[in-house]
This record gives sequence, C-alpha cells and structure tokens, in this order.
Amino acid sequence: MDAEIISIGTELTMGDTLDTNTHYITQKLTEIGVNVLFHTSVVDNETIIKKALKNSLDRVDLIICTGGLGPTDDDLTKEVVAQVFNLELSLDTRLKEEISNYFKKQNRNMPENNIKQAYIPKGSKYLKNEIGTAPGVCIKHDNKTVFLLPGPPKEMKLMLDKYVLPLVNQQEFVKVKTINTIDIGESQLAMDLEDIVRRHKDVSITTFAKTGRVDIKLVARGSDKNTVITRLNKAMEDIRSNFSYYIYGYDNIPIEKIVYEKLKEKNMKIAFCESCTGGLITSKFTKIAGVSEVLDRGIISYSNESKIEDLGVHKRLIEEYGAVSEEVALAMALGLLEKSKADIVLSTTGVAGPTGGTKTKPIGLVFIGIATKDTAFVIKNMFSGDRNAIQYRTYLKALDELRRFLI
Amino acid sequence: MDAEIISIGTELTMGDTLDTNTHYITQKLTEIGVNVLFHTSVVDNETIIKKALKNSLDRVDLIICTGGLGPTDDDLTKEVVAQVFNLELSLDTRLKEEISNYFKKQNRNMPENNIKQAYIPKGSKYLKNEIGTAPGVCIKHDNKTVFLLPGPPKEMKLMLDKYVLPLVNQQEFVKVKTINTIDIGESQLAMDLEDIVRRHKDVSITTFAKTGRVDIKLVARGSDKNTVITRLNKAMEDIRSNFSYYIYGYDNIPIEKIVYEKLKEKNMKIAFCESCTGGLITSKFTKIAGVSEVLDRGIISYSNESKIEDLGVHKRLIEEYGAVSEEVALAMALGLLEKSKADIVLSTTGVAGPTGGTKTKPIGLVFIGIATKDTAFVIKNMFSGDRNAIQYRTYLKALDELRRFLI
Repeated sequence: MDAEIISIGTELTMGDTLDTNTHYITQKLTEIGVNVLFHTSVVDNETIIKKALKNSLDRVDLIICTGGLGPTDDDLTKEVVAQVFNLELSLDTRLKEEISNYFKKQNRNMPENNIKQAYIPKGSKYLKNEIGTAPGVCIKHDNKTVFLLPGPPKEMKLMLDKYVLPLVNQQEFVKVKTINTIDIGESQLAMDLEDIVRRHKDVSITTFAKTGRVDIKLVARGSDKNTVITRLNKAMEDIRSNFSYYIYGYDNIPIEKIVYEKLKEKNMKIAFCESCTGGLITSKFTKIAGVSEVLDRGIISYSNESKIEDLGVHKRLIEEYGAVSEEVALAMALGLLEKSKADIVLSTTGVAGPTGGTKTKPIGLVFIGIATKDTAFVIKNMFSGDRNAIQYRTYLKALDELRRFLI
Repeated sequence: MDAEIISIGTELTMGDTLDTNTHYITQKLTEIGVNVLFHTSVVDNETIIKKALKNSLDRVDLIICTGGLGPTDDDLTKEVVAQVFNLELSLDTRLKEEISNYFKKQNRNMPENNIKQAYIPKGSKYLKNEIGTAPGVCIKHDNKTVFLLPGPPKEMKLMLDKYVLPLVNQQEFVKVKTINTIDIGESQLAMDLEDIVRRHKDVSITTFAKTGRVDIKLVARGSDKNTVITRLNKAMEDIRSNFSYYIYGYDNIPIEKIVYEKLKEKNMKIAFCESCTGGLITSKFTKIAGVSEVLDRGIISYSNESKIEDLGVHKRLIEEYGAVSEEVALAMALGLLEKSKADIVLSTTGVAGPTGGTKTKPIGLVFIGIATKDTAFVIKNMFSGDRNAIQYRTYLKALDELRRFLI
C-alpha cells in the first residue's frame, strides 16, 4: 500500500515548528509494510490544502493528515476534506457528548467554539481523543482511506498507535531490526558486511552513519509471518557472530539504559567524574526513572581546584602531566572511588575545543578512566568533530567501555 | 515569491532520518520574505521525483531540492531535473577540477564514480561545495528557479547561506524577531497582548507555547526597509515595556548563554549542585566554548551521602526536612559556596518522578537555591509534565532566576 503524510500548519511552513509527527508516522507505517512515498507540509490555507489533498489522492491509497483540527477558524482540515470528497459535515451527538465530558472532567465549561470539533464528514468515523479535545477522523471513500489526526504529538501518537495502525490493511508482514555499532566506520562496516548481504538476499541490510556510531538496519518482508521472522533472525545471527565486538545494542535503546540495567543486575553503584563532558554523561543517566538505585553521584570537576578538592587528585600530578592526561584520568576515578560508596567510577578528561588544543594535546584528545576496587584502567581516544560532537562521542564511547567492562 | 522545498531520499520517507534541512531552509527563506507554501519529501525513485518536481513547477516559482547529489546510482536529482527541463547533462571541466582538488587536498585519489558529480544541466550554474564533493546547482528556466543542494546539513547550510539566499530575489523586506518569555502561560499572554496586537496592525504578533516557555514572534513586512524596521521596533518596545518581567531573551538564544555573558561581565565564578536536574544545567553550560572562565564545578549530589560529603549538608537536616526541601536546597548552595572558590552557587532538589511523589511532596515539586557571600534564597516551584519536562522546566527556571539575580 502506498501512502502519503500531509502535515498542515503555517507554523511548519514558516519554520517555527520542526515536523516530528511525519517522522514518527513514517517509522510506524514502514514497520507494518506500508510504502510511504511522499511527505507534504502545507500552510493553513483552504485552496492550498485542497490542492495538496487532490494531488495526493491521485498518487496514493492511504493519506494521513495531521493538524488543523482545532476549534478556531484557521483550523480547516476537516472542512477541506469534506469538500474534496463532496461530503457534508454533520454533528455527531455522541462525539459532542464526549468533548463536553472532557471539559467536565477538568471542571471547565465547554467554550462555544469547541462544538465545531463535534462535526465530522458524513459517513466517516471519529477516533476518540483521550487527552485532548480534537477528535481524529477516518474516511473511506472511492477506495481511498484518509485519516485526520490532531497536531499535538502526544495526541497524534496515541491515536495513531491505538486506532490507525490496526485499521490499516497489512498487505504483507514486515519485520525491522536495528543493530547499533561503535568503533567501526561506515565504509569499513559496509565492506565487511558484503558477504553477509550476499548470503541474505531476502533481507534488506543497510548501514547508516550517526554521530559516534553506525547503525545496521535489517528489513524482512513477506506474506508469511514465520518465514519473515526466520529470515530476519538468520541474518541477525550472522551479523551478531561476525561483529559482536562492535555491537553495543539493538533498536536504538540509549546506551545509558543498557549500562543501567547491567548495574542493577549486578547490584552495583556508580559515580561519574566528568571534565570535558561537563555533566553530559550524568545527565543522560538521570533521564532514566529510578536511576537513584544505581547512581551515587556525579562530580563535574571543571576546574583544577575541583579535581583536587572533590576527587583528591594530587596537585603535583596535574602540574606534571596536565589536567588532560592518562595519569589524571586515573587519579580522578580512583579518588572518587575511595571517597564515595560507589563500586565503579568513570572519569573523563579531554580537550573538547574549539580552543585549548596544543601540538601534544590536540582538540579531540580524550582520556576515559574506569576504576573498581579490583582494577583501574584508562582508554586514550582521538575524536573528530566540533565541541558538541567530541562531547557526544566521549559519552558514547565511555558508556560502551563501561558496558564491555560489565559483561 | 512562492516556494516549495523538496527533500529527496528514501532515508527520509522510511523514517530513518528526521528532515531538519527543510526546517532550516524554511526559516531562512521566511526571513527574506519568501512564502514557503509546500514541503515535500520523496523516495529515491525517478518517476516519483519527476512527479513531485512537475507538481511543484505548477504551483510555485522557487524550488529548493536537497539530497540525491551523491556519486552513486541512486542519486538521481540532477538527472531528473535535467529530464524535466529537457536539458542535457554536460561535463563542467572547471567543476571537475574543483572536485579532484578536493580529493587531492585530503591526499586521496578521486574515485571513478565521483566524476558524475561534475556533470550539470546545460545552461545551469554550479554552486561550489567547500566541505564536500557534491556541488549545488542553480537552474533558471521558464521563469522558474530551481536550486539543488546536497543532503548533509553542514554542506547544505553553507551553500544556502552563501549562494542561495543572496541569489533569491527579495520582493519585499521582512524583519522577524522572537521574544522569549517565562512564567506566563500562552493563553494569558495572548489575552494580555490583545491591546498591543490592536495597536500594531502592521506587525504580525503571534505566540508559540514551548516546554517551559512561551515565544512571541513578530514579523513586519514591506517594501521600504526603514519603515519595516521602525514598525517592528515600535511593537517590540511596546511589548518590552509591558512584559519586561516575563522576557528573558530574544531570538531563542539559549538562556545559559545569557547567564554566561552576565557572569563574564561581572567577573564571577559559578558552581552548580544539582539533584533532580542530574547534571542537565551543568552540561548545558559546558556546551558553551570558553565556559571554564566562569564555571568552577558541578556536583550532582544524587545520593544523600553526596549531599553530606560533597556539599556539607548536615545529616540531621536531611532526616528532619527530607532531601527535597527548602532547607536542604539552601544548605546545598551554602555548603558548596563555602567549599568552592565560586562567587555564586545554584542548587536544585525536587521530585522529577515518575515515582517518589507523596502527598506533601508531589511529583513536580522543585526547590531552587541561590547563594552568594551576601545573600541566599530558595524558590519553591510546582512543575507539570513527565520526568524529562520537569527536569527541563527546572533548568529553564533556575537559569532565569540566576539571570534576574545578576541584573
């Protein structure tokens, strides 16, 4: 089935809002075997929305529109769709009831203009909005299916997952898996994968370079679910056995989540001391709910004083080797290990730029230290990119080193 | 002038890559007075790209395409455009020279297939790519202007700013300004703005709710540059004098950058102690190059032990009032102030959820402490949203309190 996604709103075509809805819908539709061929964004203008919709009806079978379902006059989506299909808008009393209940629950009266939202094109079905007032609409007409979904991402996602995906006819079964790798470049990986790609012609295997990592995406399609799963698993196994050193995770699960699970499993507490990453690692970690079970503390020892006072690094060590050195990375980790109740400590120190690089310590030089009561070691890295990229690559590499150490 | 942006690439319509290029181009074109009416994304398929392009030529005067200019067989953009305009692709020897120079500079030989990139439609002009191999192209034909830009955002941006924007005819002068506010809801702000909107009918004034803040966007247009600037400034001044309490910045400059400038101006060093924000504030700060001038350290005192050991909070205080309390927020800030060489300390402690909330200390309760040698105080907040939103709102509010304190 071929599909198009149309996002409606002047805030999109004026550049005020980045359209993440289309990206989300695309991912979900692709996973169930729909071919998304076009994305379109248009301004809140009747003639232009109409043009886009007519265009779209000429070239695809499934159209998903987002936005323009609010109560105000510049919300035009339903009206235009009704016109294009030559359908009347009529009041759905059950829907009106639901919208007014939504307001009642919040102890508010329903404003007069919200009644507009209870009108839907004749013969169409509304999709309930549990967390907002704008209902979705499903119209099947002339062998075409059009879904209208509200613009706020939370409302759109809930409705897409609950109503749209189950309603869309799957012509084939599609299984997608992403393998996340680190420490290998895209061209090298693509070359090394050539034999595997040849061995698994029934699975699409492609690589995508992201900052600090390369993803391998596997897509298997077919009419029989079991065959598709078997094909995908065989390719997965082949990749896994050949590239296990580089694989840190699957399906883009954040690496901190993987490390967090490992720490929980081993009942270990961790502490971070960050210099060049400036809190990035600890802040990624604390986005995880319940992280206090495994996180003792983080010290962002940006100044030498902090390294000395908070981490017990000897002043002479900094003077002799410099703050960015193997010796200081090690001393930071060992110092915090001694001081805190953590079972494992991770340290980072490096030159993130854009200034501060020297011939012997260029921008991108980063030391990552790991210490436990049994062992301590430092990994020396040279990262490319700007300040943000160097910080980000350090975060990814440091957590991957932790992950490797913990298994 | 009406425009459409067409982004080309299966990685977009498969949901692997979020299209940030279109968003960027839209913002830039809007600022110089171009009406962007449509965004389109299409797969790497000759027929489909052709359809999209023909469609686009029917409805706008200016088309900007991104992607599909690489050296491989599935890079089709130039070929399709040449076909649609009935133009031959011909080798540009100067361009070939430039591409091969690009490789020479990197001590690499030009691979055979890169020569494809030196072919451009007859009569068109190429745009030099200083940081990659894919040149851009500008085609003027039948009163339509089409720009082809490479897909990698860095290359696209450089080319857009340097070549496309100056070449696009400005029919009118447009001036855009964004005012960033905090501590006031969107509907309240929109209502309070009504008089100002009425007084400045020649300026478009709209509000946009973002997480933790509301933006006011002002757009003035006209044929005369000075008139436009005067109009915009008058409206700005009117808003500024009525809403100064809520305005923290302009044009989406990150709030940490504003605080950083203030600290530098006053020659002050800062230290952060973060509990519920888990390093978010310090890590935002350390994204700024040169921040070591004003940043002493950050302590992410996630455990009570860290609050006691690193910040000198008395154990009894935590036992009596709890880690999330006005008393502990104050003690954290004062403790780090005493210990460090910082002139000002910011502390955060709160319940970010999703668990850990109680009747007296519900999820969203956050205390922000500020201490200097002369004064110390705590602000109590109740934030809504999920864990990420509560952390983000705390970061924004805490830095705004710092900003207010510093002026």
